[in-house]
Amino acid sequence: MAKTKAGVLGATGSVGQRFILLLANHPDFELVKLGASSRSAGKKYKDACNWKQTDIIPEYVENLVVVECKSEFFQDCDIVFSGLDADYAGIIEQEFADNGLGVISNAKNHRQDPEVPLVVPIINPEHLALVENKIVKAKEQGTNKGFIVCISNCSTAGLVAPLKPLVEKFGPLKYLITTTMQAVSGAGFSPGVGSMDILDNVIPYIGGEEEKMEWETKKILGSISADGLTIENIPESELKVSASCNRVAVIDGHTECVSFSFKSEEKPSVDEVKQCLKDYQCEATQLGVTSAPKQTIHVLDQNDRPQPRLDRNRDAGYAVSVGRVRKDTVLDFKMVVLSHNTIIGAAGSGILIAEILRAKKLI
Amino acid sequence: MAKTKAGVLGATGSVGQRFILLLANHPDFELVKLGASSRSAGKKYKDACNWKQTDIIPEYVENLVVVECKSEFFQDCDIVFSGLDADYAGIIEQEFADNGLGVISNAKNHRQDPEVPLVVPIINPEHLALVENKIVKAKEQGTNKGFIVCISNCSTAGLVAPLKPLVEKFGPLKYLITTTMQAVSGAGFSPGVGSMDILDNVIPYIGGEEEKMEWETKKILGSISADGLTIENIPESELKVSASCNRVAVIDGHTECVSFSFKSEEKPSVDEVKQCLKDYQCEATQLGVTSAPKQTIHVLDQNDRPQPRLDRNRDAGYAVSVGRVRKDTVLDFKMVVLSHNTIIGAAGSGILIAEILRAKKLI
Amino acid sequence: MAKTKAGVLGATGSVGQRFILLLANHPDFELVKLGASSRSAGKKYKDACNWKQTDIIPEYVENLVVVECKSEFFQDCDIVFSGLDADYAGIIEQEFADNGLGVISNAKNHRQDPEVPLVVPIINPEHLALVENKIVKAKEQGTNKGFIVCISNCSTAGLVAPLKPLVEKFGPLKYLITTTMQAVSGAGFSPGVGSMDILDNVIPYIGGEEEKMEWETKKILGSISADGLTIENIPESELKVSASCNRVAVIDGHTECVSFSFKSEEKPSVDEVKQCLKDYQCEATQLGVTSAPKQTIHVLDQNDRPQPRLDRNRDAGYAVSVGRVRKDTVLDFKMVVLSHNTIIGAAGSGILIAEILRAKKLI
Amino acid sequence: MAKTKAGVLGATGSVGQRFILLLANHPDFELVKLGASSRSAGKKYKDACNWKQTDIIPEYVENLVVVECKSEFFQDCDIVFSGLDADYAGIIEQEFADNGLGVISNAKNHRQDPEVPLVVPIINPEHLALVENKIVKAKEQGTNKGFIVCISNCSTAGLVAPLKPLVEKFGPLKYLITTTMQAVSGAGFSPGVGSMDILDNVIPYIGGEEEKMEWETKKILGSISADGLTIENIPESELKVSASCNRVAVIDGHTECVSFSFKSEEKPSVDEVKQCLKDYQCEATQLGVTSAPKQTIHVLDQNDRPQPRLDRNRDAGYAVSVGRVRKDTVLDFKMVVLSHNTIIGAAGSGILIAEILRAKKLI
Repeated sequence: MAKTKAGVLGATGSVGQRFILLLANHPDFELVKLGASSRSAGKKYKDACNWKQTDIIPEYVENLVVVECKSEFFQDCDIVFSGLDADYAGIIEQEFADNGLGVISNAKNHRQDPEVPLVVPIINPEHLALVENKIVKAKEQGTNKGFIVCISNCSTAGLVAPLKPLVEKFGPLKYLITTTMQAVSGAGFSPGVGSMDILDNVIPYIGGEEEKMEWETKKILGSISADGLTIENIPESELKVSASCNRVAVIDGHTECVSFSFKSEEKPSVDEVKQCLKDYQCEATQLGVTSAPKQTIHVLDQNDRPQPRLDRNRDAGYAVSVGRVRKDTVLDFKMVVLSHNTIIGAAGSGILIAEILRAKKLI
Repeated sequence: MAKTKAGVLGATGSVGQRFILLLANHPDFELVKLGASSRSAGKKYKDACNWKQTDIIPEYVENLVVVECKSEFFQDCDIVFSGLDADYAGIIEQEFADNGLGVISNAKNHRQDPEVPLVVPIINPEHLALVENKIVKAKEQGTNKGFIVCISNCSTAGLVAPLKPLVEKFGPLKYLITTTMQAVSGAGFSPGVGSMDILDNVIPYIGGEEEKMEWETKKILGSISADGLTIENIPESELKVSASCNRVAVIDGHTECVSFSFKSEEKPSVDEVKQCLKDYQCEATQLGVTSAPKQTIHVLDQNDRPQPRLDRNRDAGYAVSVGRVRKDTVLDFKMVVLSHNTIIGAAGSGILIAEILRAKKLI
Repeated sequence: MAKTKAGVLGATGSVGQRFILLLANHPDFELVKLGASSRSAGKKYKDACNWKQTDIIPEYVENLVVVECKSEFFQDCDIVFSGLDADYAGIIEQEFADNGLGVISNAKNHRQDPEVPLVVPIINPEHLALVENKIVKAKEQGTNKGFIVCISNCSTAGLVAPLKPLVEKFGPLKYLITTTMQAVSGAGFSPGVGSMDILDNVIPYIGGEEEKMEWETKKILGSISADGLTIENIPESELKVSASCNRVAVIDGHTECVSFSFKSEEKPSVDEVKQCLKDYQCEATQLGVTSAPKQTIHVLDQNDRPQPRLDRNRDAGYAVSVGRVRKDTVLDFKMVVLSHNTIIGAAGSGILIAEILRAKKLI
Repeated sequence: MAKTKAGVLGATGSVGQRFILLLANHPDFELVKLGASSRSAGKKYKDACNWKQTDIIPEYVENLVVVECKSEFFQDCDIVFSGLDADYAGIIEQEFADNGLGVISNAKNHRQDPEVPLVVPIINPEHLALVENKIVKAKEQGTNKGFIVCISNCSTAGLVAPLKPLVEKFGPLKYLITTTMQAVSGAGFSPGVGSMDILDNVIPYIGGEEEKMEWETKKILGSISADGLTIENIPESELKVSASCNRVAVIDGHTECVSFSFKSEEKPSVDEVKQCLKDYQCEATQLGVTSAPKQTIHVLDQNDRPQPRLDRNRDAGYAVSVGRVRKDTVLDFKMVVLSHNTIIGAAGSGILIAEILRAKKLI
């Protein structure tokens, strides 16, 4: 099977750099195009970029010449990953989709569009049916086959990971309260979170984050419409979500304390909840794609786990860890969830979505 | 007014060191006796102690000779502060009280005793009436006038601080869910939290802490019994408390995200909640005692506050800061609370309790 | 004695904020004027500034209206403190001095000017004779009495503090090698050091810092010329300085490992070196000015001290701590020096310089 | 080629855990025996050990039953790795060697023994000739073929890595001054460095570390004696070493600022020094053993590198990074060196030594 040709938008930023690292030695993809601002266009990538990753910048990538983020320069790409800032992502990604390209985006701009699937690939890959339906329709009707898929917000990805299997098995949720302790890498590095703000400190606020978690959770737990072309949220009445988001002195890995209640009066036991999470196997694993986790959700038994430094890299960051599942005094259950915010919470999810699309021959 | 003579139990430990610092230059107290284990007894304090405070050990304290923790050695003390470990505190403190001494303890052992007031001095000093009643009775009947007062758990102190004024004004609470991000100083330093456990990390568990918060909150919000000799908890049915406790890379200052609902169907507005907190003035301030905060609760308007490094020292750590008061989707309100865990959450509360007892001529 | 009227240039920046805090409740100074960029001019200070200090912004300062940094607006000031960025400081400070104002500057621009004293006020206040001589001359000749005094670089202040008394007692140094571990507050906060750069990390480079330390040390250890109007560096041949500067995850306090050799073949003993440092009393202390440290240099005996978190606040940050004085295998001696980079290494030095000038009736 | 059977002493400690992780999936070794204290003996490893590594404990290791550290239990081992504490290592390792076993030890006890090679395997594997000579002699004479090889102290490993190639090319060194900023993982985790000691702090002292660096450097740069059975240090007169050791808030990776002078009056240029480091290829790489780094020494060109978080994992931690090579004002050159303290500075070196011995058919 030939390699899928890939481009990256916003290639010099922190999310773009992560896309590049994940693509550079990937067996299924060939990184052929890098897009950035007009200021960077025309330069070799190594000269345009302030590389800040722990892995060294791949040698052949160093010498790729950066182009502007216009679809005309990306026509040789089978798929385009966008790490663009929200200030630019909306219009640029739309222009790419309008011109027939498939875009997998980490930006928030199109997440609320009902025709755009918002996907945590280990959780709701079935929402990618929207892309499939669109492509089928495009083939039949000769219309534009371009599409956008959105990666969820990083803190949302961790939250929904254990909830989705529970909803599938025990029915819809009614209440959900979460407090997050989020890593600084989620804020990027230009300038990102300042050291004076995070050493010996907690910042109890992340702009827009609580709203994103509260809204995205409902879309991801929602269903495909009857015509197969939009996602409908779980009705407002069925799920109330409250998020309190904090930044802590952690490099990678979002830790979330989650309390929740099911709608049904018949409640599972703590052991049934844990067993359900252990048993869950995501579609990516069933498809056997490259980055699929062996174990989608790790249920840890030690009472002081999961911890970001010790558990964020399980299954290379594509799995989510859950610990301390127990009864809650106010709601039904509480637990601690840990996810790698730049892997399953950002660029890694983009790669895994592309692997699924490729396995299904949609790209 | 003559100085009140004070002793410290567990003087070499982290809480004991804090008591010493707060007492050493205090205008109302004279530190006359230091108690520690038999291993330390007979040594000069400077030789018995691994001093770890940012302030230098007071010179006259350096040369005090440590004694064993037996009441016979503390008969010249008007009040005794206990920073003993829970392993020893129960029996030792009881022996002191049985022999006529007043003990203010940071240990958990006697907190659940209905005859022992559990006091956050900026919040429920009225519970000290138990001590007053006991002393009155002792004078009348010639019985033992010894007593124990317990300081609350550090994370409980921050939690109840804004809740008590709200309960006083808007009636009892029904539900309370809190997630804490607690400083490492709360765990002391021998050995305390290891650096490998906290750098680039969060520990989502603190042994026994959640149970303490859930139980102590109800006692502190409870009332004095009809005979004035015990505290009765808010009945179980009236308040459900759920706590999730985490350790983060902060030296001092516990940050707590709190969601709560009132029992009454008539809810105050966000502005009324904030105004109630701003208006609250604690009894210690009214009494004008030395360490009383000028402003008991600081309601901060910036959306990213309170932060431990910036706000923990307000009113020398005797005040509590509250921010982000807002509607909660699931319960009535949510907010962020910050308190200095070694001041209002531990040794400082002990000092302030003693100042109140002294102002009321009970010691 | 009437209060000295003070202005602050660069009032919204991190150094400016520190000047304001130190001046706001100062018994000798009255803060009357705040200067910042034209973007801030005309606004109330609280609206122009992103306040980031642990102490609350003083209330009367909040409502001061910011002006542009032009000398015409500062004519009512007896002294002006400059926290300006190096991009602007050179020209603005010169304009102030040219128009008769005295400026105490934290910027690097005029440090190398032989007519400008470069002063660590606990170490070389005798260099302020240049200001005195200039003022005397101005009075005699009716010339401009404006002047500039430069505060040294923060890492230089800590380095020279113990060296100066040693040079006074044991003669000039020949070799000096230092490696610094510097706090992030030295880089300010807009943006300052990023959290991704400092958590779980060391940055082995601070732009321009090594050159500053190597040069400034020689000027500060240098002497006033015969005509009393310039400072002459210790000749190049007499002192070789090598500095390696690193940024570490510390909020405040620069730690420096220092190895050095005297020029003379007759070497003092380790005890003589320590005694010399203990005996040193700075002129500010002799003058009895407000911020003078009680003990200029603290010689610590524990082998693991000084430490930034525990020792930076000795004498409110106006003292310097020295530990581990011992023989060096390659040079004569080595030791560890700790200084508070924003107090004795920056704004605090400015205040102490002004206090000395005031005590000498030069302002 | 059959797998080499390996045992680990001190298997429950932090170094022991690292040995286990490195051995568990190693293609050349089979981990067959775990030794620990009598308290742990008889238990399954998972029950005896407080596992603290970021990688999960390998499943087959979990169920190995721990034995006491006596050679009789390790007779099926071809090689034994020791992570024992210095309190026990001396006697136990000697007992193993006396009974015919080869021991590679991370403990300090035998490092000064002239018959024991002290080896940084990317630097002085030629010192392993002592083992070869001993084995040859044992075969000839039927004597005991047991031996001990010592891994160097973690901070020494980083220091000598760039110095050895320079000495080989440009002749012996005369002076060496280094200041280290060492990671907390070097102190293990029971209890290791406390969080109160390292958050917002630097500890300017590590017990015994400076003496180890100063002595070990000379042994490692030393030569094999004429009879091939001992290592002779570089004579005291030829190399003076001064080390100042500090602990900083870094998890893994020791950063060292190094100034040095050659003995010869003919000095290389900065470019020649850098080229020499770039050109160096260690014997392990030439032998092609499993863990050998591709590039032994990475010479980084960016002026703010190497940094522990970004560079410690180069070549899986078996390479050393060097940056900022430049002229020193006092000595000849200065530079910054970074090494992974638990890989090339501890357990990883043990594995690489064993790989070299195996490649040479000595085990």
